Amino acid sequence: MEEVKLLSMWVSPFGMRLQIGLEEKGIKYEYQEENVAVNKSDLLLRMNPVYKKIPVLIHNGNPIYKSLIVLQYIDEAWPASKRFLPYDPYDCALAWFWADFVDKKIYEAGSRIIRLKGEAQEEAKQDMVENLEHLEGALKQMLNGGPYFGGEEFGFVDITFIPFVSWFHTHETIGNFKLAFETRFPLPHGWIKKCTERESVKKVLPPPERVLEFGLQIRKKFAAD
Amino acid sequence: MEEVKLLSMWVSPFGMRLQIGLEEKGIKYEYQEENVAVNKSDLLLRMNPVYKKIPVLIHNGNPIYKSLIVLQYIDEAWPASKRFLPYDPYDCALAWFWADFVDKKIYEAGSRIIRLKGEAQEEAKQDMVENLEHLEGALKQMLNGGPYFGGEEFGFVDITFIPFVSWFHTHETIGNFKLAFETRFPLPHGWIKKCTERESVKKVLPPPERVLEFGLQIRKKFAAD
Repeated sequence: MEEVKLLSMWVSPFGMRLQIGLEEKGIKYEYQEENVAVNKSDLLLRMNPVYKKIPVLIHNGNPIYKSLIVLQYIDEAWPASKRFLPYDPYDCALAWFWADFVDKKIYEAGSRIIRLKGEAQEEAKQDMVENLEHLEGALKQMLNGGPYFGGEEFGFVDITFIPFVSWFHTHETIGNFKLAFETRFPLPHGWIKKCTERESVKKVLPPPERVLEFGLQIRKKFAAD
Repeated sequence: MEEVKLLSMWVSPFGMRLQIGLEEKGIKYEYQEENVAVNKSDLLLRMNPVYKKIPVLIHNGNPIYKSLIVLQYIDEAWPASKRFLPYDPYDCALAWFWADFVDKKIYEAGSRIIRLKGEAQEEAKQDMVENLEHLEGALKQMLNGGPYFGGEEFGFVDITFIPFVSWFHTHETIGNFKLAFETRFPLPHGWIKKCTERESVKKVLPPPERVLEFGLQIRKKFAAD
């Protein structure tokens, strides 16, 4: 019997991507919600002693962390079902590159929109738009008749990026601006529609309003500093 | 005929790891030195429009960047010779994890030692020692009769970490402290000795004194701010 356990937080895009990955592979797993702001479980501290962060996947007692590395692990450890990463080395490098870009740039710009004010927040909003332009370019390159970054297959970049869609409402509300996907980013807009029709994505992504409540709490904490 | 070209800087640990990877696989490549502080070549700007940074590997016209992703690409695109990444998914995840740790934590602590002063520099020195303790633990776990992080094989983590050895003299001199590998980190000390005996490493790593000259220039620039 396999033991698969995920330590995560419902609102973490890094955790969501692993839940989506596990759902897509049809892997049964136990989910343990962590509230890292209040206290970290003994299991989390024992399983991730280096960073002490979620998400952590524990597979038959072995902990794996850093969500892109875990997503690749899920892909390789359960190879029987569909593949997230392409077999071709160059396509695989491209998928890793854009997943890493999402990981760093989209997360980081969003985080700055939520925490900062004035000029610094304006810069973060501009960065977010530029990052989305880059991703639109990547989607155009990787679509291949689409509708996904993985062409016909919902793959590594799709799974990495789609959780952030649950955060855009928070970025727009706190940043007091519109990303306007439908008019400004028609290609990513169509991609979001396709992805959010999938059972795995519907099951995992939290409602934007709940994420906004959480985002407003974070902003309050930073604004009070 | 294959065209393989590397855009890099002699002093970059991220570039050095790709040179070592190419040497280990026995791949013939053209090397183009970039001086990113002065100006960036048209080729670099065209090949890496997103980050505009070195190193970039160009294989038959296709650019690949982000050095760990490139190192994985080299491993997969030239599979006939020895493998850098283990086949076992968990071992592969461990290798990626520790390579990423080196990438972020060792580089970042070193960079702070070079740029900062006083209390902030002291903290960076402590962080460097703690990071090396973590890596010592990882080496113990992954050694498997050794002498490398990849067990008997000089692999992904070894190739990622070894270039920083050319920088430790700079960290020690500018930070006015000793990492004291021989007495404090005997296991990594032995690992360094074994790695630096390899032809690929001897060929690629620059003399510590030249790196120090470069490091002192960086410090001067930041100290003047």
